[in-house]
Amino acid sequence: MIRFYYAPGGCSLAPHIALEEAGAQFEAVRLDFAATQQRSPGYLAINPKGRVPALVTERGVLTECVAILAWIAQVWPKAGLAPLDDPWDFAQMQSFNAFLASSVHAAYAHVSRPGRYADGEAAAAAMLVKAPQALGDFFDLIEDRLADGRPWVLGETYSVSDPYLMVMTGWIRARGLVDASRMPLAVGHHARVSARPAAQRALEREAAPS
Amino acid sequence: MIRFYYAPGGCSLAPHIALEEAGAQFEAVRLDFAATQQRSPGYLAINPKGRVPALVTERGVLTECVAILAWIAQVWPKAGLAPLDDPWDFAQMQSFNAFLASSVHAAYAHVSRPGRYADGEAAAAAMLVKAPQALGDFFDLIEDRLADGRPWVLGETYSVSDPYLMVMTGWIRARGLVDASRMPLAVGHHARVSARPAAQRALEREAAPS
Repeated sequence: MIRFYYAPGGCSLAPHIALEEAGAQFEAVRLDFAATQQRSPGYLAINPKGRVPALVTERGVLTECVAILAWIAQVWPKAGLAPLDDPWDFAQMQSFNAFLASSVHAAYAHVSRPGRYADGEAAAAAMLVKAPQALGDFFDLIEDRLADGRPWVLGETYSVSDPYLMVMTGWIRARGLVDASRMPLAVGHHARVSARPAAQRALEREAAPS
Repeated sequence: MIRFYYAPGGCSLAPHIALEEAGAQFEAVRLDFAATQQRSPGYLAINPKGRVPALVTERGVLTECVAILAWIAQVWPKAGLAPLDDPWDFAQMQSFNAFLASSVHAAYAHVSRPGRYADGEAAAAAMLVKAPQALGDFFDLIEDRLADGRPWVLGETYSVSDPYLMVMTGWIRARGLVDASRMPLAVGHHARVSARPAAQRALEREAAPS
């Protein structure tokens, strides 16, 4: 049985949804970041990085959204969550996911966790000015990607990139870091992903009282 | 013919080495960051993110180290640059590469390009204090990874993770952000990767006068 460690509303929501889309059997283990459970000795023994998501199988521990999402797609191929038969298309999916991880998530973390990058209120304020500018530029690129009526990141086919983008869009909208009028296609995409039964199951589990 | 856009000494050095390891035929195109060629209209038409690496094939443009490295490994399987037959092992490689991209490279960029994250000298100074702390923690994890005499990131088998780590180690050492005594295994790994003929070819090309 797979164990899947998540924090409600964290980037772990993306693989959480993907596991549901895949029809995987898994035990979901919630970490309470407010109680810094991600820094507990027990969890650090699982993931020394002290972050979510972490996925535990009989083979060991797997971390990082980009890797977990692709692994889910590869292990449950019938779910059709990635273009597994074409290295170029697979690479484009990985490229988009890597961009979300190292550009979008990283920029957002300057707002949500400024202490990760600098101490002090002045530095946090300076980062809070810059992050929305960067995120605006990033979502301009994402809008281009979703143009021409494409319902999903890869076009007509849903993939693990979709819940990952959905989580990023949700974060940015929740804090109003980029105006909704600048990212209408991402907002529409967020609604489409959220409405899927698999996303509903993951969202309900994460919203349930712990 | 593949065209490969790089900036000397940039993270593009990792896929540059991987292309050489694969025995790929490619045209290497140098961008001069000092002349902000990555922001030229011609290059932005190729990669709107204005970053390197970018790889152009008849299928289109591929960006992001994590995706390009895995693509090279998949397209030249005889080079043995990734565990392609085992999704779990492949995911572990992708996890390591994603960690380098979104944690190590991102932390380093606060030193090399502070203006990406905040304006002003005070904020840059605050980030310059924090980045070495984060990088020290990250290289502690990397030292654990290389423990037990493992020559390469994945153990006994060289993979695309190795030139990627080599580039990150080189950056951190060049600026002295983490003391060499804290990352001896990474320093040794850097020397092993650098000594390979494929790495020598890429390094010589990047060092040649433009």
